[in-house]
Amino acid sequence: MVKVGIIGASYGGGELLRILTNHPSAEVVYFASETFKGKALSDVYPNMKGFTNLACQEYDPRIAIEKCDVLFMAQHQGWAMSEVGKFLAAGVKIIDLSADFRIKNPSIYEEWYKIKHTSADIIPNAVYGLPELYREKISGANLIANPGCYVASALLALMPLFKNKLVYTDSIVIDSKSGVSGAGRSSFKLDYHFPELNESMKAYNIGGHRHTPEIEQELGALAGTEVVVSFTPHLMPVTRGILTTAYAKLLDGSKTTSDIYEIYNDAYKDEPFVCMLKQGEYPLSKAVSGSNNCHIGLKVDNRTGRVIISAAIDNLVKGMSGVAVQNMNLVFGLEETSGLKQPGVYP
Amino acid sequence: MVKVGIIGASYGGGELLRILTNHPSAEVVYFASETFKGKALSDVYPNMKGFTNLACQEYDPRIAIEKCDVLFMAQHQGWAMSEVGKFLAAGVKIIDLSADFRIKNPSIYEEWYKIKHTSADIIPNAVYGLPELYREKISGANLIANPGCYVASALLALMPLFKNKLVYTDSIVIDSKSGVSGAGRSSFKLDYHFPELNESMKAYNIGGHRHTPEIEQELGALAGTEVVVSFTPHLMPVTRGILTTAYAKLLDGSKTTSDIYEIYNDAYKDEPFVCMLKQGEYPLSKAVSGSNNCHIGLKVDNRTGRVIISAAIDNLVKGMSGVAVQNMNLVFGLEETSGLKQPGVYP
Amino acid sequence: MVKVGIIGASYGGGELLRILTNHPSAEVVYFASETFKGKALSDVYPNMKGFTNLACQEYDPRIAIEKCDVLFMAQHQGWAMSEVGKFLAAGVKIIDLSADFRIKNPSIYEEWYKIKHTSADIIPNAVYGLPELYREKISGANLIANPGCYVASALLALMPLFKNKLVYTDSIVIDSKSGVSGAGRSSFKLDYHFPELNESMKAYNIGGHRHTPEIEQELGALAGTEVVVSFTPHLMPVTRGILTTAYAKLLDGSKTTSDIYEIYNDAYKDEPFVCMLKQGEYPLSKAVSGSNNCHIGLKVDNRTGRVIISAAIDNLVKGMSGVAVQNMNLVFGLEETSGLKQPGVYP
Amino acid sequence: MVKVGIIGASYGGGELLRILTNHPSAEVVYFASETFKGKALSDVYPNMKGFTNLACQEYDPRIAIEKCDVLFMAQHQGWAMSEVGKFLAAGVKIIDLSADFRIKNPSIYEEWYKIKHTSADIIPNAVYGLPELYREKISGANLIANPGCYVASALLALMPLFKNKLVYTDSIVIDSKSGVSGAGRSSFKLDYHFPELNESMKAYNIGGHRHTPEIEQELGALAGTEVVVSFTPHLMPVTRGILTTAYAKLLDGSKTTSDIYEIYNDAYKDEPFVCMLKQGEYPLSKAVSGSNNCHIGLKVDNRTGRVIISAAIDNLVKGMSGVAVQNMNLVFGLEETSGLKQPGVYP
Repeated sequence: MVKVGIIGASYGGGELLRILTNHPSAEVVYFASETFKGKALSDVYPNMKGFTNLACQEYDPRIAIEKCDVLFMAQHQGWAMSEVGKFLAAGVKIIDLSADFRIKNPSIYEEWYKIKHTSADIIPNAVYGLPELYREKISGANLIANPGCYVASALLALMPLFKNKLVYTDSIVIDSKSGVSGAGRSSFKLDYHFPELNESMKAYNIGGHRHTPEIEQELGALAGTEVVVSFTPHLMPVTRGILTTAYAKLLDGSKTTSDIYEIYNDAYKDEPFVCMLKQGEYPLSKAVSGSNNCHIGLKVDNRTGRVIISAAIDNLVKGMSGVAVQNMNLVFGLEETSGLKQPGVYP
Repeated sequence: MVKVGIIGASYGGGELLRILTNHPSAEVVYFASETFKGKALSDVYPNMKGFTNLACQEYDPRIAIEKCDVLFMAQHQGWAMSEVGKFLAAGVKIIDLSADFRIKNPSIYEEWYKIKHTSADIIPNAVYGLPELYREKISGANLIANPGCYVASALLALMPLFKNKLVYTDSIVIDSKSGVSGAGRSSFKLDYHFPELNESMKAYNIGGHRHTPEIEQELGALAGTEVVVSFTPHLMPVTRGILTTAYAKLLDGSKTTSDIYEIYNDAYKDEPFVCMLKQGEYPLSKAVSGSNNCHIGLKVDNRTGRVIISAAIDNLVKGMSGVAVQNMNLVFGLEETSGLKQPGVYP
Repeated sequence: MVKVGIIGASYGGGELLRILTNHPSAEVVYFASETFKGKALSDVYPNMKGFTNLACQEYDPRIAIEKCDVLFMAQHQGWAMSEVGKFLAAGVKIIDLSADFRIKNPSIYEEWYKIKHTSADIIPNAVYGLPELYREKISGANLIANPGCYVASALLALMPLFKNKLVYTDSIVIDSKSGVSGAGRSSFKLDYHFPELNESMKAYNIGGHRHTPEIEQELGALAGTEVVVSFTPHLMPVTRGILTTAYAKLLDGSKTTSDIYEIYNDAYKDEPFVCMLKQGEYPLSKAVSGSNNCHIGLKVDNRTGRVIISAAIDNLVKGMSGVAVQNMNLVFGLEETSGLKQPGVYP
Repeated sequence: MVKVGIIGASYGGGELLRILTNHPSAEVVYFASETFKGKALSDVYPNMKGFTNLACQEYDPRIAIEKCDVLFMAQHQGWAMSEVGKFLAAGVKIIDLSADFRIKNPSIYEEWYKIKHTSADIIPNAVYGLPELYREKISGANLIANPGCYVASALLALMPLFKNKLVYTDSIVIDSKSGVSGAGRSSFKLDYHFPELNESMKAYNIGGHRHTPEIEQELGALAGTEVVVSFTPHLMPVTRGILTTAYAKLLDGSKTTSDIYEIYNDAYKDEPFVCMLKQGEYPLSKAVSGSNNCHIGLKVDNRTGRVIISAAIDNLVKGMSGVAVQNMNLVFGLEETSGLKQPGVYP
């Protein structure tokens, strides 16, 4: 059994707990939270009543090192960078849910996050934790930079186009719609007050969301050239789910929907969690809710020469804690789908 | 492996499929639906893409008998009564999700359902499928009458009071709030059209809902006397969940919240799916969403001499398909919690 | 034109602004808010962009007295009691949206609100602001105690029964379901964080909600005897609306639905904002959303001897700011329906 | 008083009724509906109880001509084309909410709508009913083609860019999110069944929605050249509202947000229903809910050379019945804002 520690009691930590409840080869043995220290986890997460006897502890790296084979860090930006060193030295694997080790170039990190990166030397050791891109590298890694939720959906939507160099790289528009749980659990400010958001929709951080450079880094790596994209996040009155609509101009405007479908089918045919819908079908975000699945549909619009891709994930699972467990499985040589092979909770 | 057949492709059938996906000792081998015959189940239920290769078949009892150890019947009222006979004769176990075998007195059934009961002779063979009441009998049964969703919540809320004869039996008010999935999937009439219901709340069938005699039958059996209750169902703009608020006048108005809590704790301490919240806590329906769990809180109000109980279940799971699988486990001597021991999907 | 001042920039203040935008005989000339002082009202309330040039001011009673004929106080409990005196002395009318002057007996106020009442001598001057009960008195009043939102719905649901002495006064159960805006705008704690509440339902403050003594006072006044009721508030995932289901045991259990309907029709036939639905119809809360209307349906259940009433209002309008404007109209001798005669925004 | 007739009892007809309730110079005197003929309007629209005594009649053009100065046609595509002739001949003004007279080129209409246009000769008489574009022409018109809901939002979002020739006309991506009421009231199929849509999001008709040629026609007219756009509609779990995010590549990539803001401010400064938010602010769809207002925010992203515009309207008001009343006001020389100058119902 892999001994698991979790640091941080927001939605990420809660989802890890929920998912790992039925993992056949992993067990949560340590849970640290400043906010909730001393409190039973079943009081922090009301769904966990009857499923855990653990309580939140004050964070203590020595205890974490002693007890854990792997630590999931679900903390604010800038926290992990100063903590991972001691764990790596002690042989504890780290799966970091923050952005601290996602961006390879520390000056880009600093520009977008307005945080000085104090462990730039560790960045090269980190593997970007999207198994559909880096399965091999993840398997041998000690430090995983778990992807941003929007980024996971955007990369799964666009990856086959970039791998196969099918589109103008400066033509990319990514319009993402997210459930409110993406804002986290501790940020209960007026913006996320139920009456303000329910029955409402809004765009935010237009042209400036921090997931933008992460998308650009990964698409750029696939393209072999610098890529800039227009990425617009939106808040929708749902709890879970990201629906990403991505637009790209085809180099060859005569390609058909079937042509592009074939390429996507080929790219994803062996992926356990990515499912191409039939031609003419587009995903419902709820069909993947509570699951690690990603559903994708697409259409070529020959009038405009664009391909439009619609991709749905659960932002808390495939966009955060589910892919984190998938990464853990790979890191420890377990069955990649262990604890994760569940249909969405629909309706 | 228990070979499972399902008849009916509404939400009940879909939830059975979802839940049984990870059942270690059961396998769905047969699925019949008039509406969707010939269609792949992964097209009928979008969450099931990648999880099943089965298609809906035309209902054929000979094939069902040949293939199945147990049949879940998720059909409209009046259907099961004419079909169960042949399966019981052939040794196939039946778990019926309709009301046909719930009401012991066929004339009460006929009065409330406006359907002539054509198999009244079979009724005595049916066991009412609430394990918290009839665990023993279910274990040896061939025909299970799975409870109504509202009824499951009402009985779990009130059972300890009636078992211990603590309340005036004519004082019961049951006010239940249900998600819209309780209306089923095929009934997509104007009443359930999204814009009509979203951001709205309403009571319906006041004083006349068909689950009333079922509640009265089971409470009456516990009380050893005839019981009539006021039961009011409400439709709330959520997909899943029933929250039932039950009111009862205590025979001894000086009893405290702690007194009654102790009795509930005692009644449910060994129940794998019923969880008493702490005193002063009341359930959130979402904390049990997607799960077979029931959360209960209560309060004695000595000013009025009433005890008020708040109970939450997922109407599609503990209120329908989850308890049906729990019954299947008991019928076949499997671990009662097999395939069901999951926390709710929260948030 | 009546010169209106508003103190407090929560949902109550916002709704007053919205409603008074089109009032033909009243004009908002003063708006005070500690939280938002200096901020334009169109920035505090995004719907007001283009509809007002006012800014929030620091509260200054001398300016308020100078500018206003009437002040709406939309502040926390305990605030108005120390402020109203100076305004009444200066001849400024007060409509208080808090509970400070609702409860006639200051010791009951202190028991339920845990606040020492420092202006008990003013209480007798206050008129309880439910026009359906106290229209005459409101017309000549200087100080109006605007009703609690739950209370407005409960009294409209039960008043004809109590006026006509038709029910056992100790049999009352009031089960109310409220939208989240009832929690106010400044209370954006975790409980009201969108992901925690969406798709969820819960009861709260069972047996202890502060609106209970207010209901009991007014029903008791009608009954001519002390009344205690069971009142349970619930939070539902909607923004606006209260749906109250009230249960009462009839003194004469042979009365029919038609009998009771006639009595309600008679009670409300001249009321401009109370609408009896047809027999067999029950209200949709959304049908009154955004409006000052109250819809009522009812049913006698002769099996149990109870009458069950379902009443719907918009908690922010008929439950707060709409009835406050209705009271203002009466106080100033304007047409009672001025600025308020609007259908609900449906769907 | 303008005598108004309405044909069709879907959401469009209902909103016209609601809005015209308080119109000082217009009165609904005739309402025809096949589906609901003989039924009181207050039964068809539950919010209208107490606000109208009209009943739905069987459609009879002679009676409509006799009674009405203007007819709003809220029928399915293809209906108006065969009916308007007789009304125009009789001097009755027509405001058609369908697409029949929106597209100037009948073969484009026929291609996208798959309906033979039987009154192509009348098309030139029709004025496209977006007052922000065609105020002058609307004022003298007999036949108004009321805009599509998505189109209204897209044109208001993009018009100043096209008027001022600021963008590459082949770079336009329009990503729109709509509430479900846009699907109409009679289309209560499984897709719009509450449990299927609640907590879900989806794209539909990618590359093929019928509002596309309408957007292209109007943008093309402004550009003086043929324009093709990528338009993707999405269904979101809200009842009302369209939020449109539009992307366009600037001809001059060095233009700043302030530059473009100034142009928008200038374009809309005299518009009574279009409100530019401050720089850095983006609209909440709920802030315009129930109102005829349009809120717009925008951002220039110099990294990509694109301007991104976010525009919010209520699809049933500014996207349908509100703009229809605005058009009626213009047609009859009434105050353009009559009956429409209301803030949104927020929260």
